[in-house]
Amino acid sequence: MKHNKNKLYMVYGLNGSMAILKSSACKNNKFIVSNSFFNNKEDIIASIKKTGSSIETLRDIDFNNKFDGLRTQGIAVYFNYKLQDYIPRENDEVNQCYLILDSIKDPQNLGQIIRTSECAGINGIIFPERRSVGVTNTVLQVSQGGFCNLDLIEAKNIKYLINELKEDGFWVIGIENSIEAKEWHQVDMKGKIAFVLGSEGDGIRSLIKKYCDSFGTIPMHGESNSLNVSATASAILFERNRQLSIKT
Amino acid sequence: MKHNKNKLYMVYGLNGSMAILKSSACKNNKFIVSNSFFNNKEDIIASIKKTGSSIETLRDIDFNNKFDGLRTQGIAVYFNYKLQDYIPRENDEVNQCYLILDSIKDPQNLGQIIRTSECAGINGIIFPERRSVGVTNTVLQVSQGGFCNLDLIEAKNIKYLINELKEDGFWVIGIENSIEAKEWHQVDMKGKIAFVLGSEGDGIRSLIKKYCDSFGTIPMHGESNSLNVSATASAILFERNRQLSIKT
Repeated sequence: MKHNKNKLYMVYGLNGSMAILKSSACKNNKFIVSNSFFNNKEDIIASIKKTGSSIETLRDIDFNNKFDGLRTQGIAVYFNYKLQDYIPRENDEVNQCYLILDSIKDPQNLGQIIRTSECAGINGIIFPERRSVGVTNTVLQVSQGGFCNLDLIEAKNIKYLINELKEDGFWVIGIENSIEAKEWHQVDMKGKIAFVLGSEGDGIRSLIKKYCDSFGTIPMHGESNSLNVSATASAILFERNRQLSIKT
Repeated sequence: MKHNKNKLYMVYGLNGSMAILKSSACKNNKFIVSNSFFNNKEDIIASIKKTGSSIETLRDIDFNNKFDGLRTQGIAVYFNYKLQDYIPRENDEVNQCYLILDSIKDPQNLGQIIRTSECAGINGIIFPERRSVGVTNTVLQVSQGGFCNLDLIEAKNIKYLINELKEDGFWVIGIENSIEAKEWHQVDMKGKIAFVLGSEGDGIRSLIKKYCDSFGTIPMHGESNSLNVSATASAILFERNRQLSIKT
């Protein structure tokens, strides 16, 4: 499957807009800035011009009307972006990591997971074409530019892609609420790892569970037992970074 | 300082409402349910009646009008809740943990941090009376009932409260972006620990930093270097749980 869909997106605010500017994944960037921004942020305007991206300047009142209620900081950018395909890394790094999201429904969660994943430095995030929120402006906005620095991979069929990862030497670890699974920090996260996280309410679907090589769990110490999926991602990915930072 | 302000709050949805029902921190619970809910969830209705809480039933159309656009699942609850004061634990548990939030601005972040903290099983969350979002319906809603099982402590003066914690034997650890700080997993988190997290944009204020006994940092592996404060909380609190689970 090839992703040829080059969709038009928009994000706003300084962090997000600057990430687009530096990204090679985003094309045809068209920046829109308020007059005040144009006059006060000369260095940023200069760096936008340097890349050849277009800039439209609006009177402050028109800018504010256009982006009513959004915390734009005076800047927004329209751009084309397309999802990536899974392609094995040529340089065959020893430690690689993908996150496989089985049916995330909430754009805030997907955006936060992208943001956290980028900070943790993993290779990419894989999600199914159906039964998932998909990539929207909100998702990209919440990711704070994080999507520019990792692969967002939409899979027609998660099971096939998991098999492909396995053939490439990945070990597939399902993270779920189960007293039978190993505690998350006892799971060896070195090497080529793909973590599977389930949806907000239902966890990993059983037809996907069958494809996992092993499972890990984060024991809950409260009454609610409902750790948000983006908080789970953070705990897991930084535990991986801890393990990688320990010299063996 | 005593918190006598017993404020009226409202949360909705099954998880949140059931947490209120079980909580001793919430008083004068008044449940509102749709007719469909009343007729289909007999076990829940029975358990509400058992506690002596009042229940008002509305026709589905009236219920939906009242809570327009919210994902109520047919149930909402009004209740009185007051913030707690910091009181040293009498039983003097060996391992205790508070999170000190210096100036969190976003209710989603505060709500998520409460939810994560409850899952991680810490004692409480301390935040300043001013320069912080404060406890709102949104905060409690996002926490998914998590606020029922830990202390939410609003401090008139964070510095005084940090000193009080120190006198009670707490070690105060600031978490910040600094290459000079120890990596987070090299920080000893056993015993009586208070973590200080700064605001979304600016980190910990320098006048608060002076009160920290030591610092920890989570190295970033991306370009954006902007880990969300609730993702930071998750990585830190579950690293603590990892350390506590290791027998020494």
